[in-house]
Amino acid sequence: MFESAELGHTIDNKRFHKEAEHLRVELQRAQYELREAARFPVLILVSGVDGGGKRETISKLYEWMDPRYLSTLAFTTPTDEERDRPTMWRYWRSLPPKGRIGVFSSGSWYSNPIAASVAGGQVSHLLEHEMTRINRFEGMLVNEGALVLKFWLHLSKKAQKARFEKLEADPRTAWQVTKESWARLKTQPQLLEVAGHALRVTNTPWAPWIVVDGSDDNYRNLQVGKTLLEAIRYRLDKQTPMTYPVAPPLIPKLDGRDVLSELDLSQKLSKMQYEKQLAKYQGRLSELMRSPLLAKRALIIVFEGSDAAGKGGAIRRVSAAMDTRQFQIVPIAAPTDEESAQPYLWRFWRHVPRKGHVTIFDRSWYGRVLVERVEGFCSEADWLRAYAEINDFEHALDSADNLVIKFWLQIDKDEQLVRFKEREATEFKRFKITEDDWRNREKWDAYHDAAVDMMDRTSTGQAPWVVVEANDKHFARIKVLRTVCERLEQALRIESSTGNPGSRNLVQHKRKPGRHDDQADH
Amino acid sequence: MFESAELGHTIDNKRFHKEAEHLRVELQRAQYELREAARFPVLILVSGVDGGGKRETISKLYEWMDPRYLSTLAFTTPTDEERDRPTMWRYWRSLPPKGRIGVFSSGSWYSNPIAASVAGGQVSHLLEHEMTRINRFEGMLVNEGALVLKFWLHLSKKAQKARFEKLEADPRTAWQVTKESWARLKTQPQLLEVAGHALRVTNTPWAPWIVVDGSDDNYRNLQVGKTLLEAIRYRLDKQTPMTYPVAPPLIPKLDGRDVLSELDLSQKLSKMQYEKQLAKYQGRLSELMRSPLLAKRALIIVFEGSDAAGKGGAIRRVSAAMDTRQFQIVPIAAPTDEESAQPYLWRFWRHVPRKGHVTIFDRSWYGRVLVERVEGFCSEADWLRAYAEINDFEHALDSADNLVIKFWLQIDKDEQLVRFKEREATEFKRFKITEDDWRNREKWDAYHDAAVDMMDRTSTGQAPWVVVEANDKHFARIKVLRTVCERLEQALRIESSTGNPGSRNLVQHKRKPGRHDDQADH
Repeated sequence: MFESAELGHTIDNKRFHKEAEHLRVELQRAQYELREAARFPVLILVSGVDGGGKRETISKLYEWMDPRYLSTLAFTTPTDEERDRPTMWRYWRSLPPKGRIGVFSSGSWYSNPIAASVAGGQVSHLLEHEMTRINRFEGMLVNEGALVLKFWLHLSKKAQKARFEKLEADPRTAWQVTKESWARLKTQPQLLEVAGHALRVTNTPWAPWIVVDGSDDNYRNLQVGKTLLEAIRYRLDKQTPMTYPVAPPLIPKLDGRDVLSELDLSQKLSKMQYEKQLAKYQGRLSELMRSPLLAKRALIIVFEGSDAAGKGGAIRRVSAAMDTRQFQIVPIAAPTDEESAQPYLWRFWRHVPRKGHVTIFDRSWYGRVLVERVEGFCSEADWLRAYAEINDFEHALDSADNLVIKFWLQIDKDEQLVRFKEREATEFKRFKITEDDWRNREKWDAYHDAAVDMMDRTSTGQAPWVVVEANDKHFARIKVLRTVCERLEQALRIESSTGNPGSRNLVQHKRKPGRHDDQADH
Repeated sequence: MFESAELGHTIDNKRFHKEAEHLRVELQRAQYELREAARFPVLILVSGVDGGGKRETISKLYEWMDPRYLSTLAFTTPTDEERDRPTMWRYWRSLPPKGRIGVFSSGSWYSNPIAASVAGGQVSHLLEHEMTRINRFEGMLVNEGALVLKFWLHLSKKAQKARFEKLEADPRTAWQVTKESWARLKTQPQLLEVAGHALRVTNTPWAPWIVVDGSDDNYRNLQVGKTLLEAIRYRLDKQTPMTYPVAPPLIPKLDGRDVLSELDLSQKLSKMQYEKQLAKYQGRLSELMRSPLLAKRALIIVFEGSDAAGKGGAIRRVSAAMDTRQFQIVPIAAPTDEESAQPYLWRFWRHVPRKGHVTIFDRSWYGRVLVERVEGFCSEADWLRAYAEINDFEHALDSADNLVIKFWLQIDKDEQLVRFKEREATEFKRFKITEDDWRNREKWDAYHDAAVDMMDRTSTGQAPWVVVEANDKHFARIKVLRTVCERLEQALRIESSTGNPGSRNLVQHKRKPGRHDDQADH
C-alpha cells in the first residue's frame, strides 16, 4: 500500500511556483462552479503518519481556495453532547452540503478503530467489522452523490525521523514535536501494519485511498491539489448522473517516479556467480519441498511482468528443484469457452492446489487489471472492483494456509527490443514473438501505470509483490529462487513453532514477511 | 423477516393444477431461451427450516423444467479434496455456467456460519464477518452477470410440529422425521434468531432473500416457481446489460394475504374501558419516564401508517405522559433546502435525542421506501439500497442504547373514506385534508405492497415493527401506550440487571422483545 510513497518524491521550487499559480486559479474556478451548480458535496479526508504534513497541506488548500466555502472538521475527545449519541452522529452533523467542501482532518471515522487496533496490538475482527461499516457508510455517501477523496500522507520511518529532527531544530516549529511524537515513532511499524490493512479493506471503487509521499512539501501539496482539482473537474464536467458509484480516475505521480521507474536494472551476476548460487538455492528449495511440514501448506507462485521479461526461464529454474508430481504450471492465455461462461476468477479457483502441492501461474488473475484494463476488454467499473475481489481471493487462500508469492519481472524498453529482435532472429524462439507483442509494446506507458496501480492496491501483508530487476536473466532467476526459499522457510518456521497453522485467527495475520524493498540485493 | 411467512398461506388444488400447467410451459420456454442466449447463469439457493419443504420444492422444479439442464448441488461433510482447499473452493467448482441453472440445496455457503453461530448460542462478530464476506461473494457473482435467487422456506414452530406429526403418521414419509428433527425443533427459536439476523444482513439489493411460507405444498411450490419464472423472464427480456446490480422485482404473495390484510381491524374498546386504561398506562409511562435509569437511554418512537390512521391522536396520548422538557415531536414533511443538500438520512440524524430524552417522529426515514418508492421520487436502485441503510442506521442507534419503537397504524379503505369526509365537513379539521390525500388514496394497493415489503425487510430484533389495528381510535391509542410502557420496562429491566448497557457487545443483541404477533390483544 505504501511502497510508492516511500521513494522520496520531490518537486523543485521553480516548477512548484509555476504550477501552483495555475493550480490556484483553476481550483478557485472549480470551487465557484461547484458552489453555483450545488449538485454534489466534496468530502476530503486528510490522514497519515505524524509529520506527514497534514496541517501544512490543509493550510495550503486554504491559501489556494476561497476559505469562506471551505470548512475543516477536526474531532478530538467527544463533547458531552456527542457522547450522548451514536458514534457517527458527530460526523453526520458536520457533513458538507451540496456545493461545499469539507476537510476532515484529525479524528475522522477511521481514527478510533485504527487507534484501538494498534493499542490492542493486532488486526482484529472488530477492526474488520468497523471497516465494513465504514465501507457501507461511504458507499451510502457516494450513492447520495458525494465526491469522497481520502488522502493518506505517508513518510517512511527514516523520513519521519528526519522530519522530526528538522522541526525540532527550528524554534518556530519545535513545539510541533512532542514526547508523544517520538514515542509514536517507535510504534510506527504497528501503526502501518494496522493502517495498511484498514486502507486495503476500505480501498473501494467508490472511495479509494490516495497515498501521497509526504516527505517533500512541494511534491505533497501539488499532488494533493492537482488530484483534488482533477476529481472535482471530472464530476463537474460529467453532465449525466453516475449510474454506478465509481470514484474519478486518479492522476499519475507528478514527478514521474514510481516503484518500477526507481529500480536499479543494472544489477547483474556473472555466469560463475550465477551457477554457484543456482546450485545453492535449488538445493535449498528441493530440501524445503521435502519437509513434512509442507503437507499442511499449499504454495502458489504468480509470475507477471513485461513481455519477454524472462518469466518462462525463471519458472523453469524454480520447477527444476521440485518433484514433478508436486507441482503444476498453469499458463494463462485467452479463456476457454467453458471459462468464459463463468465469473472471472473461476478459472483460477479451479487450479488452487491441494495441501502439499504447488501451482505456478505464468500470468494470472492480475490480467484483469493489466491487459483487460489497458486493452478495454472489460469496463472501468469491472477492473476497479477487481482489486477488492483479488484481495478477497488471496485472503481466502491465505486463510486456508496457502502461501502466495507474487513476482513482477521488470525489464526496460531497450532490453525488450533487444529480446524481441533476438526472438525473431532465432529459429526455435520465433514462435514466442507475435504481432500482439509489438502492439503491446506501443502501449508501454499504459501498462506501466496499470502495473504501478496494481502493486499499490494489491501488495498485502499476506501476499506482497516482489519486484524483480530482470534486465539480467541471471540476477532475476536467483532473486526469484532466493525469495521462494526465504518465504517458504519463514512459513514453515511459523508452522513448526505453532504446530497448527489452521488455528490462526481468520483475519489476524502474520507480520508482513518482507516487502520488496527489504529484498534489495547485496 | 419471517412474519409474512407465518400466516398459513394456501392455494387450493383446483387453482394449483390450472396455474401449474401454464407455469410448466412457461418455465420450459424460459429455460430454453436461457440456454440458447447463454448470457447469464441462474443460481437458486433453497434454504429454510426442517420440514419447510426444501426437498419437495426442488422435486417440483425438476418436474416442471427440463432436468437435463438443471443441477442440484448438495454439500455435506467436505471430501478430503475439499478439506485441502479454501472453504469456498467447493462452491466455485460447482457454479453453473452461463445459460444453466444450479440449485444449491443443503450445505450452501450460509450453512456452516449459521450452524456455528446457533451452536455458540449467539449472533457473533464472526457471523457478522462471514455474512459480509458472503455479501461480497454474491455481489461479485451478480456483477459478473449471475441471477441469484435465495429462497427461505419458512414454518412457524407450530406448523413445523404439525408437519412432523403428519409425516410420521404416514409410513411412506415417516423416515424423514428423525430424533434430530425433534431435537432441532426445540432449538428453533435460536435458529430463527441467528438466521433472521443473517438473512437481514445479507438481504442485499443485488441478492435479496425471498421468504416463502412452507406450510402448504401448493402455495409454496407455485410461489417459488412463479418467482423463478418472473425473474428469469425479466433478465431475458432486458436487452441492455445492467449498469447497477439490482435483483429483479419480486411478485406479491399469490393468495393476496399478508401481515396487513390479516389484521383483525374490528377490535375496539368502549369509551369507559378506554378512559380507564388510558389513565392506567399514562400513569405507568409517566412513572417510567422519571426512572433514573432512563438517564443512560434515549427513546425514539416512530409513527407510520395510512393517511388519517390517527397518528397525531396517538402521539398526543403518549406525549401527554411526558415532561415537555424531555421530548420533541418531529413531523416529517418535504425536506428543507438545507436538508435536500444532504444525504437522505441526514435530516433524521440531526434529531437523534440525547440520553434521557425522547424523539417522536410523525412519519420518518421510512418515507424513502413508502412515498418516495410509490411516487417515483427516487430511483429503484435508491429505495432498494435504503432497506440496508435503514437497518444500519437503527443498528447504530441500538448500539448507542437508543430504544427504537416503530408503529404502523393500519385502517381499512372504508374507514379512511369516512375520516376523509369527516375532515372535509369539520371546520377545524379541514386543513388536515388535501388533494394529495385523495391522490394517495388512489394508490392504496401500491402503498400497501410497499408497507408489507418494508415490514418484511426492516423488522429487526432490536427494532421490530408493531402493527396497530387502528379502525377504532381507542383501541389503537391504548395498544400504542401499552407497547411503549412494556418495551421501556423491558429495556430498563435489562439495564438495572446488567448495570451497564454500554458494555453490550456491538453486534450481539438482546432476545427479540416481542414481535408484533406477540402483541395480540386480550
